Amino acid sequence: MLTRQNCLDLDAADPLAIWRQRFRLPTEVVYLDGNSLGALPAALPVRLHEVMEAQWGCDLIASWNSHGWIDLPLRVGAKIARLMGAAPDEVVAADSVSVNLFKLVAAALRANSDRKVVLTEAEEFPTDLYILQGIADLLPGVEVRIADPGGLEKAMNADVAVMLLSHVHYRTGRMRDMAGLNANAHRLGIYNLWDLSHSVGALDVDLTRDGADLAAGCGYKYLNGGPGAPAYLFVARTLQAQMNNPISGWMGHARPFEFASAYQPAEGIARWLSGTPNILSLAALDVALDVFEGASMAQLQLKSRQLGDLFVALVEQHCGTHDLRLISPHRSKLRGAQVAFAHPNAYAIVRALIDRGVIGDFRVPDAMRFGFSPLYLRFADMWDAVHHLANVLDGEVWRDERYRETARVT
Amino acid sequence: MLTRQNCLDLDAADPLAIWRQRFRLPTEVVYLDGNSLGALPAALPVRLHEVMEAQWGCDLIASWNSHGWIDLPLRVGAKIARLMGAAPDEVVAADSVSVNLFKLVAAALRANSDRKVVLTEAEEFPTDLYILQGIADLLPGVEVRIADPGGLEKAMNADVAVMLLSHVHYRTGRMRDMAGLNANAHRLGIYNLWDLSHSVGALDVDLTRDGADLAAGCGYKYLNGGPGAPAYLFVARTLQAQMNNPISGWMGHARPFEFASAYQPAEGIARWLSGTPNILSLAALDVALDVFEGASMAQLQLKSRQLGDLFVALVEQHCGTHDLRLISPHRSKLRGAQVAFAHPNAYAIVRALIDRGVIGDFRVPDAMRFGFSPLYLRFADMWDAVHHLANVLDGEVWRDERYRETARVT
Repeated sequence: MLTRQNCLDLDAADPLAIWRQRFRLPTEVVYLDGNSLGALPAALPVRLHEVMEAQWGCDLIASWNSHGWIDLPLRVGAKIARLMGAAPDEVVAADSVSVNLFKLVAAALRANSDRKVVLTEAEEFPTDLYILQGIADLLPGVEVRIADPGGLEKAMNADVAVMLLSHVHYRTGRMRDMAGLNANAHRLGIYNLWDLSHSVGALDVDLTRDGADLAAGCGYKYLNGGPGAPAYLFVARTLQAQMNNPISGWMGHARPFEFASAYQPAEGIARWLSGTPNILSLAALDVALDVFEGASMAQLQLKSRQLGDLFVALVEQHCGTHDLRLISPHRSKLRGAQVAFAHPNAYAIVRALIDRGVIGDFRVPDAMRFGFSPLYLRFADMWDAVHHLANVLDGEVWRDERYRETARVT
Repeated sequence: MLTRQNCLDLDAADPLAIWRQRFRLPTEVVYLDGNSLGALPAALPVRLHEVMEAQWGCDLIASWNSHGWIDLPLRVGAKIARLMGAAPDEVVAADSVSVNLFKLVAAALRANSDRKVVLTEAEEFPTDLYILQGIADLLPGVEVRIADPGGLEKAMNADVAVMLLSHVHYRTGRMRDMAGLNANAHRLGIYNLWDLSHSVGALDVDLTRDGADLAAGCGYKYLNGGPGAPAYLFVARTLQAQMNNPISGWMGHARPFEFASAYQPAEGIARWLSGTPNILSLAALDVALDVFEGASMAQLQLKSRQLGDLFVALVEQHCGTHDLRLISPHRSKLRGAQVAFAHPNAYAIVRALIDRGVIGDFRVPDAMRFGFSPLYLRFADMWDAVHHLANVLDGEVWRDERYRETARVT
């Protein structure tokens, strides 16, 4: 039997424990939703204040040069690159995941121009599916092939131009074998494109080692860049010369301030910029990324798996008599930094937990989802969260009317 | 002969004079570049602080509902709508101008599907030209027709699906006859798409009166939303059901949090959202728009024209002997809230002026550009700016080596 003292002992031995001080978190809250919106880095408001008052307010337009705003998408991209085994010049911060996926899929189709199929799998994250549908509607002859869950390998063939997959599934937390899938795809001449939104910042992602071609992901989950923070995209260096951004705005031009009439793409990753970068939100993401300094990706992955394993073990210990079903892989090596349990009353249970300061989230149809952001969670938090979960289940607290109403957004 | 006292008298009688207090501007600076980056609204840092600390930091993920983040793109859009004679449900804040133009051009081509030509004019703002080139490269058969300057009407015919034009030209400040061009285009079945970046917030734009179909523009010039602030887009209500966003991300879905597999566009303007909205930068734009409360668009246009007329008159009075040529229309009714003068040494002159606290900008090949943001400029500023300009020209200060080096970005 695990005790709360066991958890406290794990915290005392945790080399990442002091990172929690770099975040501002409300007391009395166990925040298990960092996979949806990361916590506020403590240094962020002061930095934003400086960008607003000293840079924008005082130096005005000159700040584009004097404060390096113009290069911020590349500098932030280089910081993200370190978190995913990419070279600094393979990543740029820009736009949203949806827009970046659009750009990359359209580019891959053009680079693989005798093929018309985009491959993905059923139950991928909705925006990924929707973006593919939009591309198929827009580009004549393009077909979206949606493999049945588990049927991906069978659906790969020489018709496929590019496959779009999440590294970690948003609901179940299942992690894909990136290296194996990429190797198989490459044998068939298929470009791979990874949505890293639910993995980078919590796992030991290594795009170079695993043969990734293209990737995109968001800045507001494990990267803690703030609500709707800028996204990023990755293009492997070997592909950069042959891939072109279809949303060819001026910031991706080789010399944007020459105001030439003809578009000429910048060399390297900068061509994936489109419009003017949003400096306030990029500066926020920039300071959020500095929080990762001193932590290795291996450490982050190890701790997020330990947190997840502990959480699952505690649920088995304290809630074993209830109608909970783990829908994430049981082995932490097969999942990301999150677990989900199915329960017929998942929605009401999640709301009752939130009322008790344990913040997870609900995903249709019946999943309670809990994320384990390794930089600011404690092992004792796992104990406290499961303690509340057991109380809610044992007392059938979720039967309360106020937890069962369905008005919700996120 | 105008005197500085005349200018002070104009300030004393100016109903918009008190608006300057709503901005934070460095003393000893005459800021004539609000058409490139608007000044900092005084209330903005405090509001951002609240969004960061009280909303994100304390209420975390719940803020999407409890602080209305999820509707912020629509609420901000409705505020922008008032500045351009649109209905509140015809405008949404999203993405960048470049991305929004891409979405709207691609949508107009699909809605006008038996036509393949996109019409614009030479010397339009580069990113507008670049986006059209990108679309022509992406979509089979699409052709970009670039009319010679002044040859736009002749280039309109029944092959044209959509025309993309700036309301106010970024360099010369020339304002187009929106109503006349739209009427001619409609007679030929051509959709109109306006880039409003250099007009909304300083002029009396009225999209409804003038028959606009589609429009986009940026939040960081006259709207003062901060560097790289979110952009906006407009779709006339009558066209909303027949136009679809090609970048069909989850935030434009009818019910994004049902996580359905199939994309179903939201009713109305919300379908033009793609990815997750950036809340920090949207909140900044939101508070910047509140600064417009109490000012009518007619007042803004009148003052910006008076400022421009005064500036031109003072240049004629004090710099008449120099090699300056007004490349903007002389009649303020034909231009936006900016003027430009050509000079062989424009670049060095602009730099010398900046050294004296008069901030304008240079545009290739030889233009000095001065913007007249009506909410925070004073008539006496016009006097002081021209006084410095005359000194720089009379003393040939621009010959100094340090003003002639060409390293520059913005």
